[in-house]
Amino acid sequence: MTTQELVHQIKQKQSFLCIGLDVDLEKIPKHLLLEDDPIFAFNKAIIDATHHLCVSYKPNTAFYEAYGIKGWQALQKTIVYLNQNYPEIYTIADAKRGDIGNTSSMYAKAFLEDLAFDSVTVAPYMGKDSVEPFLAFKDKHTIMLALTSNQGAFDFQTKNVEGKELYKTVLETSKTWKNSENLMYVVGATKAEFFKEIRTIVPNSFLLVPGVGAQGGNLQDVCKYGLNTDIGLLINSSRGIIYASNTLDFANAAAVKAKELQQQMAEILSK
Amino acid sequence: MTTQELVHQIKQKQSFLCIGLDVDLEKIPKHLLLEDDPIFAFNKAIIDATHHLCVSYKPNTAFYEAYGIKGWQALQKTIVYLNQNYPEIYTIADAKRGDIGNTSSMYAKAFLEDLAFDSVTVAPYMGKDSVEPFLAFKDKHTIMLALTSNQGAFDFQTKNVEGKELYKTVLETSKTWKNSENLMYVVGATKAEFFKEIRTIVPNSFLLVPGVGAQGGNLQDVCKYGLNTDIGLLINSSRGIIYASNTLDFANAAAVKAKELQQQMAEILSK
Repeated sequence: MTTQELVHQIKQKQSFLCIGLDVDLEKIPKHLLLEDDPIFAFNKAIIDATHHLCVSYKPNTAFYEAYGIKGWQALQKTIVYLNQNYPEIYTIADAKRGDIGNTSSMYAKAFLEDLAFDSVTVAPYMGKDSVEPFLAFKDKHTIMLALTSNQGAFDFQTKNVEGKELYKTVLETSKTWKNSENLMYVVGATKAEFFKEIRTIVPNSFLLVPGVGAQGGNLQDVCKYGLNTDIGLLINSSRGIIYASNTLDFANAAAVKAKELQQQMAEILSK
Repeated sequence: MTTQELVHQIKQKQSFLCIGLDVDLEKIPKHLLLEDDPIFAFNKAIIDATHHLCVSYKPNTAFYEAYGIKGWQALQKTIVYLNQNYPEIYTIADAKRGDIGNTSSMYAKAFLEDLAFDSVTVAPYMGKDSVEPFLAFKDKHTIMLALTSNQGAFDFQTKNVEGKELYKTVLETSKTWKNSENLMYVVGATKAEFFKEIRTIVPNSFLLVPGVGAQGGNLQDVCKYGLNTDIGLLINSSRGIIYASNTLDFANAAAVKAKELQQQMAEILSK
């Protein structure tokens, strides 16, 4: 999907919500455990109930790998279901991969070609040749960690590197890489006060923003400095939406939570 | 496996060789493509031919994910085969994972508990709470990227952070984390001149050293400063061993290459 197609969808739906499909079998409604594939059954119900309220879904691969082969089958079924039934939806494989060049090429092929996600998250620590293989895919995005939502972000990401914080060096350096127009960045909602300076470095890039909800980030604070003329934000909520209820009515409960966020977004966009 | 069991195996075999099982269907012998599971057939043959010459195998998960469900089945069969037939072998899931705490816990469970690897590689960018969930597993190791073998290592890892290079800050900071005695570190063989200073920071830790062979690193240069009283090194070679030949006799050809490295190691240890 191109960036412009994503922007078009955001404007149509008046939503820049991304729903994180982080499926934990201990948290989903018990009746789903009787299904052949409880993870996919859960995802399908959530997607069918919320697709008109969000523009993106983001399965985190950890939750699928934790269930081995069955987990990967559920991930594969989920992306096929999304691409077949809701082709307008922007899909993100939250994988945080990164390795030497020939190995990153294998990861890029796995997520962007075989599974046919629109984008994949990557870690920057190994530098240019670990990320460029992902950037080579046309009409796909590579979403690189910049400033993450967790406490550990302060261990290295905000350390002063030759006069500026490491995450700023990461942002600036990545702009020089081949096909860098295909980059987006992860910036945590819990770091709202950092968005102003981040926007001076990457004014036009989309930012994927986790951390609203369970992790304590605030939508209004993020939007204050994070929005740009193309909106430029994908706000992710996972646990706050998908685990809104664990009764038979869980999908509707998730839709209610998603609609709350969508309405806040519509109000922000109307200003 | 405990560190002492690994050291014991190294001394017995006079080898600190790790063989990287990075299986690419375009590179393996053509006759294997007729097998039900060509990836596992290849791994099994390589393992049977080389297990007495090395102490460790390291499948890189990218190469398995690139083949989807079939790839994960092959990875699972490979680790089960190793654990059942060669329980003395130290196994490394080269996954380079890392995420917020609850997500890292899922990755740790997937690799250290369900797949039952002895260790898993992780990326440090997200800091303490992204790595500690891996460290919580008893008699397992977490192998963190410090200074990698690729050119991109110079993009961020060697940048000056408040007076010293980032990778040194990563090494020093990680020593303060809970269960840090379960840490090992990745240091590329192509950076041999850095080992002296690294050993002043982590004198006792095992270092996993990729980059000998195809990437140009040199065994003697690494050992000069990398060895410690417990040996403290796992030298990885992937392509240089497993793709030594693509004829019917590929496994023996791999064993010849592995034996060359093992003999060099035995000679170094005898000094």
